[in-house]
Formats: sequence, C-alpha cells, structure tokens
Amino acid sequence: MQVPRTVRIAIASDHAAFALKAELAVALAEWGHAVIDLGPFSDARVDYPDFGYALAQAVASGEAERGVALCGSGIGISIAVNRNPACRAALVSDPYSATLAREHNDANVIAMGARLIGPDQARACLSAFLAGPFAGGRHVARVAKLSHPTL
Amino acid sequence: MQVPRTVRIAIASDHAAFALKAELAVALAEWGHAVIDLGPFSDARVDYPDFGYALAQAVASGEAERGVALCGSGIGISIAVNRNPACRAALVSDPYSATLAREHNDANVIAMGARLIGPDQARACLSAFLAGPFAGGRHVARVAKLSHPTL
Repeated sequence: MQVPRTVRIAIASDHAAFALKAELAVALAEWGHAVIDLGPFSDARVDYPDFGYALAQAVASGEAERGVALCGSGIGISIAVNRNPACRAALVSDPYSATLAREHNDANVIAMGARLIGPDQARACLSAFLAGPFAGGRHVARVAKLSHPTL
Repeated sequence: MQVPRTVRIAIASDHAAFALKAELAVALAEWGHAVIDLGPFSDARVDYPDFGYALAQAVASGEAERGVALCGSGIGISIAVNRNPACRAALVSDPYSATLAREHNDANVIAMGARLIGPDQARACLSAFLAGPFAGGRHVARVAKLSHPTL
C-alpha cells in the first residue's frame, strides 16, 4: 500500500549508490510521487556528507516531505542527515525495519546501503517506509526528544 | 581479533534492549575492556533519546573511547547519538556492516536493534566493530565533514 497522495520526496546519494538512486527515483515516480533529485548526476566520486546535508536541508525547509538517502553502506549518509535535528533518518536493510521506523520513530528519511542490499529489497523497504503510519501514543514524547536542541 | 588493549566502552539502551545490553556488557568485560554502563538498570519503560544523549556525551567528553547504543530497532537511539557531531553512530545488523562502519566512516559508536538481531549476531557485530581499523585515505576528508558545525 502506498501513501494515497503525491508526496514530495527528495533523494540523494553518493557515487557508490548512484545506480540505486536512479532505480528508486523511477519507482517513486511510478508510484505517483514528486521526486526531487539532489544528485549526484554521474558516478564520479563525491563526498557523501555533502549530499546528506543537502537532503537534510530539503527536508528541514519543507521543500521535501520525506527523504531517501543512499550510499555504499548507508551509514555515512545516515549520520550526515541525522546531524540536522529536523530529520529522523532510519538506516534499514529490510522492510520490517522500515515499518518500525515509521511506527515508532516517525522517520522522515530512509537510508539504505547499495553495497548491502539489492534493488528489489531496497524498493520493498522504500514502499514500507512510505506506507507506514506513525503509531503516536507513547512514541510522541520520545520523538519530540529527538529534536532536543542541546546535547 | 579484538582490539589488543583495554578500551573504555560506554553502553546504553532502552527497556527493549535491556537484556541485550547485559549480555553485551558481559562479552565486553570478557574481552578485557572497561565497560561504562549508562543504564537503564531495569526493564522499566524509558525514553531512548535520554540514554542516547548520555552515551553521546560520554563519547564526546572522552570518558568513553567507543559506545554501544541499543534499542528495539536501533533506529531511535542511533538518531539520538548522531545529534552529537562528536559521534559517528553506525546502525548495523551484520558484521560486514560493522567492518565497513570502521573502515569507511571511522564509526565510534555501534547501534543495534534487539528486536531485529539475536544476541550471537549482536556479539559478532560488536567484535567486528572493535576489531576493524579505519582505512584512512580518501575517507578522511569525508569523515571530517561529518563534524561540520553548520547544516
């Protein structure tokens, strides 16, 4: 089940996940969403933090409602996105984790690793992420604490 | 192969990962490390951001050299830890990811989900995390950007 409306979704990667980004951008468009591709636009070597910060800014500003962050392992770009307190980036490698990320953490960014999971699994994770509702309830106060301004 | 010296390792969780925290603390002590258990100290419900922030502070201050962050999925606490620019928390569910986290991202915190992986897999991830060297080279500039003060 997809989100039953057009969602503005930003997508960004590094060179290692360039091909996966292209595949997932096609899937998002097929599902009827508005895709904001933040690059890169070739597979030349880039630094994942640059693209993670750009994605985080797109979500923080409201330009995008959700984000998809990809790199070789998903680790580096997920760290970069989570530097921004407006983002809750969930690094996942299976659809159940993507569902939990929505249900418990109200995640607004999904991160995945192109070296670790294949394109079909990535598409299944993305679908679960977009379909999953936030459970609310006891999770609300915890999610609010993730926007804590001081550490 | 373990790190061939005593490392000061902070460990923290939420209630969902309380039992896994106890198991991993025992493993760390058996491997000869100094374990700083930041709680919780029962399985009563707590908020994972509180424990994630405490762990991040322990690493940022130098009290701990490395950190182990656990919750149900690992997602929530990894987001919390990564709010602190001194921390590079890698959420993993397999040992190869833990190795990549060290090699490429110089991760100083490992995050895992007690609902998602079993205790033996968690122990294998932790072992790989502690054994893995940072590759340096082209990764140095990328890791430096993760400490970027502005978003």
